[in-house]
Amino acid sequence: MANLNSAVSVIATKRDGGELSDDQIDWVLDAFTRGEVADEQMSALAMAILLRGMNRREIARWTAAMIASGQRMDFTGLTRPTVDKHSTGGVGDKITLPLAPLVAACGAAVPQLSGRGLGHTGGTLDKLESIPGWRADIPVVQMRKMLADPGIGAVICAAGADLAPADKRLYALRDVTGTVESVPLIASSIMSKKIAEGTGALVLDVKVGTGAFMKTPELARELATIMVDLGTDAGVATVALLTAMDTPLGRTAGNALEVAESVEVLAGGGPADVVELTLALAREMLAQAGIRDIDPADVLARGKAMDHWRAMITAQGGDPDAELPRATATEIVSAPASGYLNRLDAMGVGLAAWRLGAGRARQGDPIQCGAGVEMHAKEGDPVTAGQPLFTLHTDTPDAFAPALTALTGAYESGATPIAPAPLILDRIAR
Amino acid sequence: MANLNSAVSVIATKRDGGELSDDQIDWVLDAFTRGEVADEQMSALAMAILLRGMNRREIARWTAAMIASGQRMDFTGLTRPTVDKHSTGGVGDKITLPLAPLVAACGAAVPQLSGRGLGHTGGTLDKLESIPGWRADIPVVQMRKMLADPGIGAVICAAGADLAPADKRLYALRDVTGTVESVPLIASSIMSKKIAEGTGALVLDVKVGTGAFMKTPELARELATIMVDLGTDAGVATVALLTAMDTPLGRTAGNALEVAESVEVLAGGGPADVVELTLALAREMLAQAGIRDIDPADVLARGKAMDHWRAMITAQGGDPDAELPRATATEIVSAPASGYLNRLDAMGVGLAAWRLGAGRARQGDPIQCGAGVEMHAKEGDPVTAGQPLFTLHTDTPDAFAPALTALTGAYESGATPIAPAPLILDRIAR
Repeated sequence: MANLNSAVSVIATKRDGGELSDDQIDWVLDAFTRGEVADEQMSALAMAILLRGMNRREIARWTAAMIASGQRMDFTGLTRPTVDKHSTGGVGDKITLPLAPLVAACGAAVPQLSGRGLGHTGGTLDKLESIPGWRADIPVVQMRKMLADPGIGAVICAAGADLAPADKRLYALRDVTGTVESVPLIASSIMSKKIAEGTGALVLDVKVGTGAFMKTPELARELATIMVDLGTDAGVATVALLTAMDTPLGRTAGNALEVAESVEVLAGGGPADVVELTLALAREMLAQAGIRDIDPADVLARGKAMDHWRAMITAQGGDPDAELPRATATEIVSAPASGYLNRLDAMGVGLAAWRLGAGRARQGDPIQCGAGVEMHAKEGDPVTAGQPLFTLHTDTPDAFAPALTALTGAYESGATPIAPAPLILDRIAR
Repeated sequence: MANLNSAVSVIATKRDGGELSDDQIDWVLDAFTRGEVADEQMSALAMAILLRGMNRREIARWTAAMIASGQRMDFTGLTRPTVDKHSTGGVGDKITLPLAPLVAACGAAVPQLSGRGLGHTGGTLDKLESIPGWRADIPVVQMRKMLADPGIGAVICAAGADLAPADKRLYALRDVTGTVESVPLIASSIMSKKIAEGTGALVLDVKVGTGAFMKTPELARELATIMVDLGTDAGVATVALLTAMDTPLGRTAGNALEVAESVEVLAGGGPADVVELTLALAREMLAQAGIRDIDPADVLARGKAMDHWRAMITAQGGDPDAELPRATATEIVSAPASGYLNRLDAMGVGLAAWRLGAGRARQGDPIQCGAGVEMHAKEGDPVTAGQPLFTLHTDTPDAFAPALTALTGAYESGATPIAPAPLILDRIAR
């Protein structure tokens, strides 16, 4: 019915609290991809979806229609099982960097399509691009070669233009129209890319807390449940961990700073929380991929993950031995009093790193590789008055003042230590 | 605060159910007019406003900001009081055509800025353009001359590009994004134009019923109350009538057909409901303009309104004696049984006229001057099996089939007559 499928009637259906039919969803996303439904129409629909919601059938169909807007990748010819991880994004979340080569070293193939950062959370591709020579754009034929190579087995790269193009256009639109914060739209955006990517298994790291998109466990659980269902129904073995994002992961937030910290983890060191989450996610990925009797902690300890990291970076044009870029200016923030660091807020640190130049306000903005925040104490650590708490890094010293403003109130000391909060909050599987 | 005034933060404020500050409203409409806020951002905001609402302060400020986006007209130099009428639109609503010259003949000046039709209701300018030579675009200096001329005293014309340009852009956007049906946006759109037009007094005809935008008396009363407040607060003496739009006004729906019917009214004849509403609105307009002791029924009967009509049409390039265009094809719909016509639905007749070519689906579409529906019986009339009920007019005979479909179920006969419903339902004043 032509009339039911006009843009205005699809918008009006959702605006008035109705359910979109399969036919309406297929039509509107196809017409949007072809340019027949205009950006202003899609943004009105996105706002109506954000405020009225979508049920499970609508979300599943919306996801399928976004996949159908482009090409689906196919890695079924590989001899090793494919498995991927997706994080909803958090401050200092560099886990993909040590995780992909670690899981590859354990025998899986990891086709990790990643994104760039926007706002206060960093993007995996932005981080890796601080390695001299490293390239994010890898042709599919080379991806397949890297995944098939037993000495590499992992690739972290940008999605091609023909992978869920409707999602790409819609995401860019949501970003400027205040329609990012919709659970149905977030779930379908993530899962359309991950299903189209052709992975056989998927582990989701759904962040919850002040530094995450999902501020409450309830919202995070809702998002995780929807995504696990979408993946499972599409034939992708999917599980989700709910993990805490009230305080930053690790001791760095910023692109080159996080690469250096990831290399420490691969070398057997690194902050305890980064190691803990990397191993927990690796175990889930191996289980989803059907790989048993291999302990990723042992593989990490034996340096095998580092070998795969070096091979993966080299295959993408990077020099794993090159010195990483450093910011030209630093400023130290000292502890005002002795005691224990009892709160270190993820959002405050993320905003500070962003202001220092590590992130971008709009898609396509340049970022500074060396900018960011180094944390010399983590939640629960004892601190002495005058000791360094943070080192701020930037190429643009004017950024120190707004970064310090962002940090104001983001940390608190007390006379007695608090018990550290658990990192892994829940596991969602079907 | 730059951050509070970003488009996304304004959208997010309304999306999350908050109140927009004066500053946010001023900024977003100014930035929209300048092109800094993009169409997709404004359409997301319009949808958020539609679903979350605006309070009286927000609506008043929104209206003021739309007025401030352009130039305000000034007719205060005229010796006669200015008064205008606005109808929210209905099927067969040609009242402006006899009303403006009638009120001018009673001694007021009527600067009637009008619009074009969209969807199932016709536009006053479209109707008048079926008069050979008549022009809707009249320079302000000529408007003033016509209003000052005691033999004319009225002008019905299009608003200039600099009258509330933010409203023009927003209205075009709302039309394609499913965001027309918002009481705050409808009220501010109408009143920004009417206040900017510079009239001293205003009578609103707020339609309620199946053929109107407002389907219930509650919604119509809400809209009327808001508009009366907006006008009064802006120094325009404003009153509203709530009038029925469940059945068409008069016996014609279509451009040239309605002009012919209006001329009948000016000549002292015409359908009783059109005459009743024209006189009721004329009395309200004269009262708002402070003109007492003149009975418009008497002025109409003496042919004075016809004199002003002829002078007004002539001043705008039209020939009041020219033959009106007629459609090339007609089809008659006959009564299936004898009895009384107990229901004649405005929306069905409006859709039929639209399908026949009298209306447009998109702004800028061409329309047919001669197309429309002639009604040979009104609600409550006795009908005999086989007598003509409707004559359909069109230049495109393919349109008969969809027009007949639109009329299916739009009329009903019964053995006993129903009592005719009242035309004027309520009066809203402050």
